Amino acid sequence: MSDVLIESDANARFKRWKKLAEETRAVKKEGATLVEGIHLMEVVRDADVDVAAVMIDDERVTEEAEALAYETADKKYARVFRLTSALYDRLSPVEHGVGVMAEMVLPETPEASRWADADVLYLDGVQDAGNAGTLIRTAVAAGFRVIAASPKTALLWTPKVMRAAMGAHMGAVIVENVTAEALRANFKGTILAADARGGEDLFAADDYSRDSLCWIMGAEGPGVSEAALAVTDRRFYIPIEAACESLNVGAAAAVCLFDARRRRQCR
Amino acid sequence: MSDVLIESDANARFKRWKKLAEETRAVKKEGATLVEGIHLMEVVRDADVDVAAVMIDDERVTEEAEALAYETADKKYARVFRLTSALYDRLSPVEHGVGVMAEMVLPETPEASRWADADVLYLDGVQDAGNAGTLIRTAVAAGFRVIAASPKTALLWTPKVMRAAMGAHMGAVIVENVTAEALRANFKGTILAADARGGEDLFAADDYSRDSLCWIMGAEGPGVSEAALAVTDRRFYIPIEAACESLNVGAAAAVCLFDARRRRQCR
Repeated sequence: MSDVLIESDANARFKRWKKLAEETRAVKKEGATLVEGIHLMEVVRDADVDVAAVMIDDERVTEEAEALAYETADKKYARVFRLTSALYDRLSPVEHGVGVMAEMVLPETPEASRWADADVLYLDGVQDAGNAGTLIRTAVAAGFRVIAASPKTALLWTPKVMRAAMGAHMGAVIVENVTAEALRANFKGTILAADARGGEDLFAADDYSRDSLCWIMGAEGPGVSEAALAVTDRRFYIPIEAACESLNVGAAAAVCLFDARRRRQCR
Repeated sequence: MSDVLIESDANARFKRWKKLAEETRAVKKEGATLVEGIHLMEVVRDADVDVAAVMIDDERVTEEAEALAYETADKKYARVFRLTSALYDRLSPVEHGVGVMAEMVLPETPEASRWADADVLYLDGVQDAGNAGTLIRTAVAAGFRVIAASPKTALLWTPKVMRAAMGAHMGAVIVENVTAEALRANFKGTILAADARGGEDLFAADDYSRDSLCWIMGAEGPGVSEAALAVTDRRFYIPIEAACESLNVGAAAAVCLFDARRRRQCR
């Protein structure tokens, strides 16, 4: 297969990628997303996921990025497309990128039974893509490999969320569109909510970590929803200074998820 | 004093604010910064800081924001300036703001002796403004009220850092341009570094929290510098999943700072 050079924005493939780059719904509808840059490309190359196409900036790609493009294409039986810089820039989320990206096929959503006993992070209406990505990264690092998302949460496979998660998606099991009721019906362990408005002091509380765990994190501002609180087994607050209003959701999640990890490790 | 309407970008005050909005050096040189939006304005109104001017978007200001503008101006003996939307937008960091901001005078840098015995977060080359702001917010919430910054760290009083910190600056003591050597010479407690490359397991380590503490956080990527490691008493890593490369600096700081808080609380 020889490389194809795409020079016109009327090209059908380019139009498809542009939709994936810009429209959240397209990612969902097409079951595909774009990943950009050395780090994400390396993670995708090494992960058990399909790649539909590899794209490089024909004018500005670095040597390292070009080598990675061909290596990934080889390994995934995908084709390389060379784009003019003008077209590449319209797909790229970063301004001075290295000039390599790929169209990745989204993995299939696992059956609910697969995560009934796992450790889960439940995103309850987290709409900010950067926050959602950071939460996925933190959860995977803490050993909470299932990320379940409420219907109001940002779509987790968009380029922006993937960038913020720095490749953690590939180490996670992502389940979207899970209502609080569905979470309760499927999940067999203990459901915990982080709620600045009340509950038990996270650090003073007796051990909660023997069972498999689902930590619920709400959006900044509104916090955990009523529907999610209704299915919660235990509710915790992080003891912060009175002078301070709140933690951001990324910091709160780090404290909670690693509190669970510490309790298990130190038991 | 009656309000002034500013309609031209040749206005000297407007030119000054534009510099504060856009140039990091101007914030340092002028000893002033801009704060925008209801939340930051309320924090500034209630804090022991001086306000040089209050600015409102003459065409789009909300009722709530306008009331806050006059209240703040009253309390701080400052004047209100009305700007055309076109001019206001050139100063505002957000696109659809409520139309109120202020020029705040930076507090004086405290003498070194004032923080020799305090709990300190030392930012070692954290150049990303958003990260720096989040770190300040997390530190104040955890009771680490002194934020010391290395010369290579982002300037902490810029509008972008203040926005990310959500007003936590007002509950903090900010000390900038502190070399690792100066930190060691001034600080009397225990200096701890969070370093993914090695050290003690944070959760398994014996108590480190009796003394006053200084936690060092490095930039994402490079991590803690050699100069900072050289003045470190104890070095810790956060035990994360092997499958996962790293935590972002905001999450790592949350885990470390709240580990110290928990140890003190549970002692």
